[in-house]
Amino acid sequence: MDKENFKLKTKNKKARTGTLETRRGKLKTPFFMPIATKGAVKTLSIDDINQLDPGILLSNTYHLMLRPGEKEIQKLGGLHDLMKWDGPILTDSGGFQVFSLGKIRKIYEEGVEFSSHIDGRKFQMTPEDSIRIQKAIGSDIMMVLDECVELPAKKEYLEKSIELTTSWASKCKKYHQKKENGELLFGIVQGGLDKELRKKSAEDLVEIGFDGYAIGGLSVGESEEQMYKVLDYICDELPENKPRYLMGVGYPHQIVEAVKRGVDMFDCVIPTREARHGRLYLFTKKKLSLTKKNDKSFYTTINSKAAKFQFDLSPINPDSKFEMLRTYSKAYLRHLFTTDEPLAQRLATLNNLEFYLELMRRIRKTI
Amino acid sequence: MDKENFKLKTKNKKARTGTLETRRGKLKTPFFMPIATKGAVKTLSIDDINQLDPGILLSNTYHLMLRPGEKEIQKLGGLHDLMKWDGPILTDSGGFQVFSLGKIRKIYEEGVEFSSHIDGRKFQMTPEDSIRIQKAIGSDIMMVLDECVELPAKKEYLEKSIELTTSWASKCKKYHQKKENGELLFGIVQGGLDKELRKKSAEDLVEIGFDGYAIGGLSVGESEEQMYKVLDYICDELPENKPRYLMGVGYPHQIVEAVKRGVDMFDCVIPTREARHGRLYLFTKKKLSLTKKNDKSFYTTINSKAAKFQFDLSPINPDSKFEMLRTYSKAYLRHLFTTDEPLAQRLATLNNLEFYLELMRRIRKTI
Repeated sequence: MDKENFKLKTKNKKARTGTLETRRGKLKTPFFMPIATKGAVKTLSIDDINQLDPGILLSNTYHLMLRPGEKEIQKLGGLHDLMKWDGPILTDSGGFQVFSLGKIRKIYEEGVEFSSHIDGRKFQMTPEDSIRIQKAIGSDIMMVLDECVELPAKKEYLEKSIELTTSWASKCKKYHQKKENGELLFGIVQGGLDKELRKKSAEDLVEIGFDGYAIGGLSVGESEEQMYKVLDYICDELPENKPRYLMGVGYPHQIVEAVKRGVDMFDCVIPTREARHGRLYLFTKKKLSLTKKNDKSFYTTINSKAAKFQFDLSPINPDSKFEMLRTYSKAYLRHLFTTDEPLAQRLATLNNLEFYLELMRRIRKTI
Repeated sequence: MDKENFKLKTKNKKARTGTLETRRGKLKTPFFMPIATKGAVKTLSIDDINQLDPGILLSNTYHLMLRPGEKEIQKLGGLHDLMKWDGPILTDSGGFQVFSLGKIRKIYEEGVEFSSHIDGRKFQMTPEDSIRIQKAIGSDIMMVLDECVELPAKKEYLEKSIELTTSWASKCKKYHQKKENGELLFGIVQGGLDKELRKKSAEDLVEIGFDGYAIGGLSVGESEEQMYKVLDYICDELPENKPRYLMGVGYPHQIVEAVKRGVDMFDCVIPTREARHGRLYLFTKKKLSLTKKNDKSFYTTINSKAAKFQFDLSPINPDSKFEMLRTYSKAYLRHLFTTDEPLAQRLATLNNLEFYLELMRRIRKTI
């Protein structure tokens, strides 16, 4: 864990570009990770993913430990071979979904007990379990187990929670070091909206020492302004020479704002989930700016199911690299959505992921 | 309608190969038409369809008259441009689905009154309406409106029904001739399992004269043997120099049996519908034979959701022209099905349509 995996290249105020080296290749930061929850980016094939060229995917430990299961995925040779993706995969610790999907039975010093949302089967997960499972999946960037606190939360609760998270983080690191095989391990800064606690959480984690630092517990009910406030100071508490990952965020302008505050890595369900409901992300003619405050003018969204597209024979996206998006009309996409044809969701997913990945390219260029 | 659009090439007993010329290109018979009910082959894009190279697609007039609607599809420039398919499209008359999906209010000499299964909206459809709508869609091979009778049915009912179907067929032809624009029009032989009525239906339609003859009202509840019995004599009642189309049939061995009895064209939901439920069609090492009786040894099916594939890392289909089917494992396909990933249905659909189209190629070669 002493190897320098992250190299800064340029800085523009707090915004920065760099490269993150994983055991499955180098990534230019800042980057965005499409979500392949259960070993597939919903509606897409590996051909689609390769054409999108995201560099890295994110998969969810909680879902994969339930199906196919830890032993099973190991027997299958890991997630990469299963889904035919040979780039790096980042996995969450399972914590977030244990807390949001599973029926929690108990949180205790050693870990968490929960029931599967699928069949009620009981599971225990200690920090060591989480890392062991992530290694079984074949994760290249692993996350420590953390408690995800919904906001607003009381200070005393948050205080205890970051203590627990720090203690779990330390256990994760120890376990990882014993079985180290080139994976990176990230700590997760918690502390809600409390500056003091956030700083304490960051400090404690930095003392333990990780390959990168995630900022967790944001985009969970607080306002945009509140989130920006945390980002305003938290990156300064983290080492300059380690990547910073803002978990689960966000809308395109939020990503820009986070990059301006020093964040390097992102993941979010927005492009894929909203695609499946018919919302398309598109660039406007306005240039992306890192100087304007909370600028949203560089993009727009459309509801492709809207009646106004019924006779719109213009292409879904004339600027797309996907021929289908350049040739199929908005009228056809609307027809596919209104008649529940699965192709609709695939087209919209391709459009939105292409948008998010292009957004990151433009951000890197602008820095 | 006097032009010779169909040319016989070879004959092997009753089985035959030939070419059917449509205004959008020539097709080698016997052929199979994948179903694009609402203007898309479920789960597939036009890239997928082009790679499958089916030559022709079938779309459903009933579904398209409800959504986008007759006027709407005309305004959109027809179905071909909407879905970016430039090969021929055969449309059914809407009759079959009016009778099976719609809430029928009345069948009368002039046509049929029904309510949409989507929103209960009331529609009337005369034979002339059906042809007008098929022309609006841009159909290259149109079907006459017919009454679809569920089997078993009483002789008196069937007798009246074929009279009605013949009268509608005649009206369809007259309407078509006034607006003729290079489309082909097929009559539909009805008559259930009654030899006398089937022959009468065929005779009446041949007298009117069509570009081809469909055999309707089979695969609607009768046994396989009963269906073969009808095919044993009905092709002899139809002109040698016109194509014969067995509607909605069937399993691979049923297609072989029908070809042996002189049928040239097929469509069926089996490959696509069963794919979406996880059933894959695959060739065995046994050669296709036109001499063995009701031979099924040339193919097999597997339930790709079955537990036995949990750790099966062999490719979904090593012989496929689709790289994804050659590289993704059966274990992955099973995982995708059990976790409801949309990619599963697309992979299985590609496999099954490739199988059916390859089946037709082998049949043509064997004849």
